[in-house]
Amino acid sequence: MYKLVLMRHGESQWNLENRFTGWTDVDLTDTGREQARKAGELLKEKGYEFDLAYSSVLKRAIRTLWIALDAMDAMYTPIGLSWRLNERHYGALQGLNKAETAARFGEDQVLIWRRAYAIAPDPLADSDERHPRFDRRYAKVDPALLPATECLKDTVARVLPFWNESIAPAIRSGRRVLISAHGNSLRALIKHLDNISDDDIVHLNIPTGQPLVYELDEQLRPIRHYYLGDPAEIEAAMAAVAAQGKAKS
Amino acid sequence: MYKLVLMRHGESQWNLENRFTGWTDVDLTDTGREQARKAGELLKEKGYEFDLAYSSVLKRAIRTLWIALDAMDAMYTPIGLSWRLNERHYGALQGLNKAETAARFGEDQVLIWRRAYAIAPDPLADSDERHPRFDRRYAKVDPALLPATECLKDTVARVLPFWNESIAPAIRSGRRVLISAHGNSLRALIKHLDNISDDDIVHLNIPTGQPLVYELDEQLRPIRHYYLGDPAEIEAAMAAVAAQGKAKS
Repeated sequence: MYKLVLMRHGESQWNLENRFTGWTDVDLTDTGREQARKAGELLKEKGYEFDLAYSSVLKRAIRTLWIALDAMDAMYTPIGLSWRLNERHYGALQGLNKAETAARFGEDQVLIWRRAYAIAPDPLADSDERHPRFDRRYAKVDPALLPATECLKDTVARVLPFWNESIAPAIRSGRRVLISAHGNSLRALIKHLDNISDDDIVHLNIPTGQPLVYELDEQLRPIRHYYLGDPAEIEAAMAAVAAQGKAKS
Repeated sequence: MYKLVLMRHGESQWNLENRFTGWTDVDLTDTGREQARKAGELLKEKGYEFDLAYSSVLKRAIRTLWIALDAMDAMYTPIGLSWRLNERHYGALQGLNKAETAARFGEDQVLIWRRAYAIAPDPLADSDERHPRFDRRYAKVDPALLPATECLKDTVARVLPFWNESIAPAIRSGRRVLISAHGNSLRALIKHLDNISDDDIVHLNIPTGQPLVYELDEQLRPIRHYYLGDPAEIEAAMAAVAAQGKAKS
């Protein structure tokens, strides 16, 4: 039996400002850092040890991982970074306030962009300086693979090759793995693991900074999963994430 | 022409207390963190970018690297960790105050232990809880390779395979490399690069937290090397390191 731990990064500056972040490289807030520290302490307290960690190439996920590994006194854990674990690319919406966008386009449209499995917002123009092809961290990635917008289906399609080619083989080889990533890249993984339908996956809300444990059998099929933290706290965190798309009154 | 940047970790708690550290996993002081931040800012200001970074598995080197990469806004830089970049193992001296050891054994004996190329202090006993075989970060390392003490010659012998098999090929493939390591593992690299004699290498003092640039030709032979920082500051830092073995009056 294998154990895999998933962790959504702690609160970021744009989570706080309720803006569409996507691939924008915003940092954690002090609250987000505190969440990461608590996650690390919880993992340590429960006796978790990791042989390998993964993160996206976005600093909110990397910093969450660094802080958690530091709190576990396990900074020596090797870290594999991949753009394939990045948050869903939010296209032209990146930078817009979610409540403002809801007020302007209607909550229904925002909910479609946020939650429809196969409908992507307008893409960034090729000349847009926010386009990933201008960011040197993607310099070694085939430009044809770099998204200018994504729906969740697109995110799933680019996360899974990394799962299949890197993470799953590492788990099968006996390495205990921790993944620090994002709401939608973790949805992509969970959709695959739990075989969740296109319609249902969009309603899955993953709280920030809460270690989520998957126990997997030899074929990496989930036996069960659970959050490590306090259930009431997790319930509140999930509700807060679900409410983000609503216009502020 | 290739550029390689070496960086000795910032001041650690035991540097401050003037104790033999070796493989003991002590953390940076606030001064050490500040040195690391300044090193990162200097690298950024001078236009340095890295495709790959390396560190030992000791937290003072890892934290120096994390802080420097953060200051460069390049947290997404992949990091390769290896025990082969660790500080020289100081055997039974680990934990002793350098000035106290000098007062007890004489400055000459301490200088021999610190500076003789091929004379190692007494080893840690196999049953000593400080022995690396009890530390889970070395669990995947062949136990026969794990030192219980080292002279600088031993350190050179275990650093070089990592240079030859990992770092040098990465540089030759065009990757711009930053290495965060320790006084003696960096001596080992520099001895190899500059072909320094056994007698001379022990007198080379590398200041903490100062990026040291090596320009290398196609065969990775040094063309020249220089510190990036302020020359007067570096001179003072080197003198401070050289004075560490002396008994305090």
